[in-house]
Formats: sequence, C-alpha cells, structure tokens
Amino acid sequence: MSLYTLKIDCRDEKGLVYRISKILFEHGLNIERNDECVDEEPGLFFLRAELKGQLNAEAITVALRAVLPEGARVCLGARRKKRVVILATKEPHCLGDLLLRHDSGALNAEILAVVANHAKLGPLCARFGVPFHHVSHRDLSREAHEAAALEVLEGYDLEYLVLAKYMRILSPSFVARFPGQIINIHHSFLPAFIGANPYKQAHARGVKIIGATAHFVTDDLDEGPIIAQDVSHVSHDDSWREMRRAGRDVEQLVLAKALGWVLEDRVFTYANKTIIF
Amino acid sequence: MSLYTLKIDCRDEKGLVYRISKILFEHGLNIERNDECVDEEPGLFFLRAELKGQLNAEAITVALRAVLPEGARVCLGARRKKRVVILATKEPHCLGDLLLRHDSGALNAEILAVVANHAKLGPLCARFGVPFHHVSHRDLSREAHEAAALEVLEGYDLEYLVLAKYMRILSPSFVARFPGQIINIHHSFLPAFIGANPYKQAHARGVKIIGATAHFVTDDLDEGPIIAQDVSHVSHDDSWREMRRAGRDVEQLVLAKALGWVLEDRVFTYANKTIIF
Amino acid sequence: MSLYTLKIDCRDEKGLVYRISKILFEHGLNIERNDECVDEEPGLFFLRAELKGQLNAEAITVALRAVLPEGARVCLGARRKKRVVILATKEPHCLGDLLLRHDSGALNAEILAVVANHAKLGPLCARFGVPFHHVSHRDLSREAHEAAALEVLEGYDLEYLVLAKYMRILSPSFVARFPGQIINIHHSFLPAFIGANPYKQAHARGVKIIGATAHFVTDDLDEGPIIAQDVSHVSHDDSWREMRRAGRDVEQLVLAKALGWVLEDRVFTYANKTIIF
Amino acid sequence: MSLYTLKIDCRDEKGLVYRISKILFEHGLNIERNDECVDEEPGLFFLRAELKGQLNAEAITVALRAVLPEGARVCLGARRKKRVVILATKEPHCLGDLLLRHDSGALNAEILAVVANHAKLGPLCARFGVPFHHVSHRDLSREAHEAAALEVLEGYDLEYLVLAKYMRILSPSFVARFPGQIINIHHSFLPAFIGANPYKQAHARGVKIIGATAHFVTDDLDEGPIIAQDVSHVSHDDSWREMRRAGRDVEQLVLAKALGWVLEDRVFTYANKTIIF
Repeated sequence: MSLYTLKIDCRDEKGLVYRISKILFEHGLNIERNDECVDEEPGLFFLRAELKGQLNAEAITVALRAVLPEGARVCLGARRKKRVVILATKEPHCLGDLLLRHDSGALNAEILAVVANHAKLGPLCARFGVPFHHVSHRDLSREAHEAAALEVLEGYDLEYLVLAKYMRILSPSFVARFPGQIINIHHSFLPAFIGANPYKQAHARGVKIIGATAHFVTDDLDEGPIIAQDVSHVSHDDSWREMRRAGRDVEQLVLAKALGWVLEDRVFTYANKTIIF
Repeated sequence: MSLYTLKIDCRDEKGLVYRISKILFEHGLNIERNDECVDEEPGLFFLRAELKGQLNAEAITVALRAVLPEGARVCLGARRKKRVVILATKEPHCLGDLLLRHDSGALNAEILAVVANHAKLGPLCARFGVPFHHVSHRDLSREAHEAAALEVLEGYDLEYLVLAKYMRILSPSFVARFPGQIINIHHSFLPAFIGANPYKQAHARGVKIIGATAHFVTDDLDEGPIIAQDVSHVSHDDSWREMRRAGRDVEQLVLAKALGWVLEDRVFTYANKTIIF
Repeated sequence: MSLYTLKIDCRDEKGLVYRISKILFEHGLNIERNDECVDEEPGLFFLRAELKGQLNAEAITVALRAVLPEGARVCLGARRKKRVVILATKEPHCLGDLLLRHDSGALNAEILAVVANHAKLGPLCARFGVPFHHVSHRDLSREAHEAAALEVLEGYDLEYLVLAKYMRILSPSFVARFPGQIINIHHSFLPAFIGANPYKQAHARGVKIIGATAHFVTDDLDEGPIIAQDVSHVSHDDSWREMRRAGRDVEQLVLAKALGWVLEDRVFTYANKTIIF
Repeated sequence: MSLYTLKIDCRDEKGLVYRISKILFEHGLNIERNDECVDEEPGLFFLRAELKGQLNAEAITVALRAVLPEGARVCLGARRKKRVVILATKEPHCLGDLLLRHDSGALNAEILAVVANHAKLGPLCARFGVPFHHVSHRDLSREAHEAAALEVLEGYDLEYLVLAKYMRILSPSFVARFPGQIINIHHSFLPAFIGANPYKQAHARGVKIIGATAHFVTDDLDEGPIIAQDVSHVSHDDSWREMRRAGRDVEQLVLAKALGWVLEDRVFTYANKTIIF
C-alpha cells in the first residue's frame, strides 16, 4: 500500500467536503490525514489529504473534477522526492545546511545541482558530490547573465529553484519561467532594511530582534507569498557581526522549514499568500 | 443566522467524513471552518466544525449519531459564554489578568465567582464586582476544607473551574466532582522543580529557560492533559526574583491562552492528552 | 543601608573604570551589580551600578565629575517609585495590564493619572481608583487638543508619560516638552503596516509573525530608540481578529517589560538607540 | 595590536574592580569590552574583559594575582582557535552542523577528529576531511570501551570534547579525565523523558513544547552546568517523527550556540551552574 497526497483548490461551494469524501470513500481509500480551509473573502476552498491504498490516480482525478466547480485544481500523486536546483552566491550557511539535510536523507528532495555567480562555494558542493556550475556575472548585463544561468538550468528537469542567499535580483522574465517554483530566504528585519549591509543597518538602528522570511518569488521583489518567518533576540551587547551570525542561524532554519513544507506538498498559494497544512 | 460549534469524537472508521458531511449538507448548513484529525494508534477520530445557518440541533445530533460508530460523542450547540469559577490563593497576576479580560469582554466566559483560601485577593475581586469567597484552610483537614469549598461552589452552576495559582492540592474525590472541567496553570521548568520555592530552585540550578504549563487536572497531580505551554529565556544575570517575575508573565499568558481555547470548544482530551483545533 | 543606582555616560577614555571604581572604593561603597559598555564608533562609555551603603550622593557625584571627561552625565539616587501618567484612547489591554501591575505593587511606579481622548476607559480607571481625565479631541485642532491635554498634565509632577495604545500623533512641540520621557507601544509587523487596521493588512499579506515594539517617542514618528520587541507566531488559520488578539498580548507584554526597565533606571539612550543593562 | 581575553574569578571583596582596572590602566591596555558579576550567596566575583594592546601576559597575570584574594583564578591569553574532538554515534544532524561551521570558519575551533561507536558517520567526516575513528562498543564492557576510546583521544592534544548525540553514558572515571571540558547536548523535554525513544514518549504525553539543553558533563548524568537551552513549539498534529525532526533542529542550534560561547571564553562554571558573558 502506497502513500498518496491529494491537493484540491477551487471556488467554495456548499457540499464540497461531502462530494469529495464520497468519491474517496467509493474508491475504498483510507484518509490518513485531512486538512481543509475556506477563505471566505475570495470564496476559495482548499483541501489536502494523505491517502493510503491501491489507487488509480487518473480515474480518481477525473471523478473528482466531475463533482468540483469549474476551474478546480486537483493534484493527486504518490509521495516522492522533488527535483531541486539551488542558486547561491558566496555565503555557505543556507546552502551547506541544505546539502547536509540532503545528504542524511532528511530533505524530501533530490538536489540536482548548484548554480552560483561566484566560484567560492564550489568546494563545498564537491564535498557532497553535488554538481556545481559557476556562472559568473562579471562583465555581463543582467539579461546576458540570466540567459547563461538559464542555459545551465535547462539541462536539469527541475521542479523547484531555491535561492540560498543568492544575491542577484531576478528579472520578471526569469521569474516567469518558473511560476510558483522559486523559493527565497530574505533577511527581513523589524523594520526591514534595504541595501548593502542590512546587519550594520540593524545594529545602527538598535533593533532588539532580527528575523528571516522564506517566500515564493514573484515579480514583486521580496514581496511574494510568505511561507515561514522566525526571529532571534539580540541586544546592544551584540556587534553587527554577532547580529549577522544570529541572523544566519535564523535564515538557515527558516529556509529549511519552508522548503520542507513545500517538498511535502503542504503549501497552497493564492492572492499573494500561503496556506500551510 | 447563528453560529454553532459541532464537536465529534468516536472510533475511526472508513467513510466518517463522508457520512458526516452528507448529513450537514442535507440539512443545508454552511461549514465555516472544519478541522479533523485521526490518531491511528488508538484508532480515534476527532472533528470540530463551525456551522452557520438555521438549525435544529437535536434533529441533527440524532441524524449524526445514526451514522456514527457506537459510543460516538456528538456535541452541537450555539456559541455562548461559559460559566467559570476561579480558585486562587494569594498571587494576583493570573487572577487579575482573567478579571481584566473578562471585564473588557475578551474572555468568552462569565466569571461567576472567585474562591480563595486566603483573604488577600478580595479587594482585587471587589474592584471588578466579582463575588469573592474566602474559605480559609486554617485548622481544617483537607477533607473539611474541600467540603467547605464545595459548599460554596455548589451555589454556582459552573462549567469550568480555573485554578489561577491555587496553591492547594486537590483530593481525587474533589477532582472527580469536576471531570474534565478543572484547568490549572503550573510553573513547570526544564527540569521541573517540586516544592517550596521553585524559582529559587531554578535559580540555584542555573536554568536558562523558565516555563509554564496549562493543563486539565486529573487525579495524577500536575500530570493531566496539557493544553498550552510556553517559556521565557533567563540568564545568570537574573536573580530568582527576576526569574519569578518572568515566570509570572509566562504563567499569565499561557493560562489565558489555554482557557480561551477551552471556552471556544476547541479542545478535545483523550488518553491523557489534548487536541487543539 | 539603602540601595542606590548610579548611571554614568560620557566620552570614552582609557582608565574610566579605574577612576570610577577608585572613587566608589574610597567612599566605602559596596557594588552589588555593575554593568559597563563602550560603543566604539561614537566613542561613548556607559556604566550602571547598584550600590549599597551610607552615601552622600552630592559629594560622590562631585568627586566623580572631577575625574570624568567634560560633559559626562552622572546620575546617582536612591531607588524609588517613578511618577507616571498614562495616555490612552479606547483599547483597554495595555492600560489594564499596567493598572493591575501597579495595583499589586509589581510596577516600580506611582500611576498619577490616566488621560484619554475618549471616555470609554474611565470606568476601568475608576475600578483601580486612578484619576481619569477625558480630554476629547472632538472639534479641536491638534494644537488645541494638545494644549488641553498639556493643561491636565501640568497638574501632575510626572517623570514618564506612557502611551498605552494612544491613537493620536503627537506634534514635535508636544514631544519637545517631555524629552526622553515618552514611551510608546507600537504594533510593528514584519513588514510594518501603516494606516487604518494594521491587523487586517497583516492578514491580507499573509504574515506568519506579528510583533510589537516599545520605544521612546521622538519627533520622528514611531522611529525613536527601541526599548523592547517581541513577536507571536500566527498562521493562515488565524483570522485578522485572532491576529489582533495575539498582537494585543504581545503589545501588553512588551510595554510592561520596557516600562519596567525604564522605571528601574536600566535604560540609556543615545544616537537613536538604547542600551539596556 | 592583538586581542586578548582576560577571565578572573575569585572570592568577592570590596575594591576588586578598582584594583583590577588600576593594573590594566597602568599597563596601558585598552578595555574593549568588560563584564562583571557577583554572586552574593557564595560570595564570588567574576570578570571577563577583552583587551587590546601589546601585552606581557605573564607579567600582568602576576601583577593581578598580587592584588586579588587568595585562590583567584586568572586566565589571560590571545584569542585563538581551540582544539576540539567530537564524540558521536549514528545521528548526523549535530555533527554535520559543527563540521559545516568548522568548514566555513564560523566556529572558533579546530576539529581534530571524530570518534564514534558506530561506523555510520565515517563518510560524512570523510566529506570534510576530518579524521574519523570507529571505536565499536560491541562485545566490550563499558570500561574496555572507554579505555579503547581514551587510547584514541590521547593521540590528540584536545581542549574540549563535544558529545554530538553520543548515545553512551560516560563513567565517572572517564569524566574525571576531562574536568570542565566535556559538553553535551541533551534532548530535554518539559517534562523530561528518560529512556529509549524520548520523542515517542513526548508524543504520547501530548507535550506542546520540545527542547534541548547543552551542558557541561559532570559525574551526575545530564545534571551538569547548563550552558544554553531552547525550545520549539509542537502540536497534536505532529507525529513523533515530526517532533523528532523539530527536536533535532533545536538540538543542533543549541549545541552550536553553547559551543560558540565556550570557544570564545565567555563561560564560567561554579556551583553547578554557568555565567555566560
């Protein structure tokens, strides 16, 4: 008996749970776990279920679609590792943490490759036997650099693209190539600091908390649907270097948590926000 | 249109969600929110739904019972304030916080009275116009003191009994009078300290965290189902008095949170643990 | 033997600790606790000490000044309750919490009065016997309203002015009357939301964390030195009302913590930030 | 100009700060950071300073000892990486995290080797080029196994021994060989669970928080001075496997934090507790 994950999102209507559960019941499926949620304002319905049994995914999907409102998205598949490529620059903490979790089997993913605009992280990838591509941005326009990166990425049949402290801004056309597939980790403070050295700015501002936000990337820089956030307490005693260190620990943890949820098909996105089941 | 809360817990069986949702659908009810959960080991099913509509609670309950496994508990009722009595001793922080939330309408409860084994908190209750009963334990055996307290409590048609830093141990026979109705807040540290001044002990042990646990009271002292827990960070810099102050803030917050969930019918208990929807 | 608090801040120089400790030693004082800190960039030195003994504060202050760099601020005094006035509007959670702590003696302050631009919180103040002044802003210009408020405030010999969810923006000239004496609690999110209903905005943005910041008020609205910050985790499951409830608990706790530190003379401010000893 | 760290702990006496700062001043040293603390009950004084300058450590130590109470411990030395050996068993998360921080230079240590009672973690160490010694406990008494491990450890001039999820209990005689040098990470829950699978127990108990404690190892198993503690929130929704995953993240972070403080000479231990400057 295999484990399957079912995800449905559609316009909300009376009787949806009844119709869906009827079909699952008629196909003799065990529901191991079931989460539902309605967002009334836009009138949307979300359901995620973990199913056990022998199942014909195609037949069930057809049966479900037949009873769901028009335009419903139904996604039913066996649990499996997702194919991931990581973009990075020079900082090793987030990348290293993901490689480590990948290496120990704790990450529900196959890391196909790492692409970086600096050479520095090559040796770290080599330690874990993960292909590393150095695509330098030196002397290239943004378009030219992205084109070069895309050429490399096209060699992989990737499902998610993880920005593990990738310090380049992506163009809308690049983002459009991977809709809902790019996950970023952002050092977001309270208040947020923009520009060169955010930790120096946070220190200068005298914040008592630093944080990080993992989110999907949309055209709107750092403004896509938030997946996970967390913070760490700091004090006047902490230099900006100590704040950076604390910030890195939070970034690493928040990215791993967010990616874990995405890889387990626990995340819905809509209206620039997420539902995490 | 009124708001109703439905709670079901029963033996797990295939098709439960289907059967339940069918009946709700047939009675024309809008499901505003729905949470389900299965604990596989004991094979139990839990559901909580918020319903909107005109409904005949009795008819629906009968219809539900007819399709549920034997022994199912079905609880369907309109949202309303629960009747609460508070037991206290001398410390004002938890009691005061509850009186304040009650006063501002933030607590989904009617606080009927406060019963204390010391006179100290009388003036605080008087400020809020809440009846205060001083039932001293002086020169009384535990049985005699509990009997005196019970006499007072019997004057109130209470649904929940909240121990807001009530420093007396309750006998099994007292607890048996209020099954699943007594909520306690416990200063539980990591590790837990037993006895006279737990904060002095925590300070002597050099802990870096202090915490609090809100739980239902069972015969097993401080070992009933946990509803909520939280902690606060402390350091060697904190005297035991500062640890106590931090501990009180956590206690107050954890008790308010736990009680809030109970009062909104969001808590199931079984096998000495809770499910919070 | 009484307890005294000594606060010094001045230009940093080699040998400051030596010179200060020499004088304290020569006056036979016991140092119960001592915190120092240097901020190298501006080159500033901060010291806070708790002293025990019979002391002539004036003589010691003169002796200290003689060995400290020009412009040094020296503040030496016996521990005592500070005189506080609270400004509020309609929300009771922060005000009520402070009144409660005041009532139980947990706050190192005497709350002289509450001034509000709405009448709603009058009964709450009456419960605690604290004078309440309703200074309505109806049909008044900002200047006229502030003038009316100032007239009331001048009746009190206040040391700190606490904005407990006071929903009016203070003019620079009002702020200038109370330099370094006004403490505010701000619902600051990650990212921060400005305008009418920040919790609705936070919900719409799908944040996973909400927070609060206690800070001194300067001309720069919500941008003064930060004293304390904390957050609470929320999820898609939380409506904006539940987010508001969680936010209020954080606000209340952060304000009480920040005010506690200020009242115990543990806070220095400089360069738009704070040092908390 | 080099950076030095000075640590002093001794019997508390009036004038200590004066005497110490006088000597530092007379030797022309810049105090970059200075922390002091008195624990009145046992009457002990602790000081840690970061000094900049050209210094004769021996001469200054002699001069300091001359003005300090008998038995004072004075420790003055240049900042340098400490020599560390790690003991592990089968779980990779804490070990991997330390190897990664070591690899990126974020850990103020040189990891000399890893010694494990299972072979499983050998490949992970090989990835980072760190010597791995498999010292199996199969068919060996505790004494014999510890003797075999000691033989390996004696080959390294280690300063700290880090138990990164080392699942063997150390004998008092082994611990006595490394007084104040062994650091352990302990999955300590609220309440603590002892025995085979603590996460299964925690799940069965229905805890809402899981945590971890990093501490020095003394004869008293899991009862040595606590260096750092933290927790993670869990819910009924989390299976014991998910609790374990959350627990591992906390363990990894708490161990890295605690070890970081130790390696920067920021930790004092006395009376079975720690002071962290």
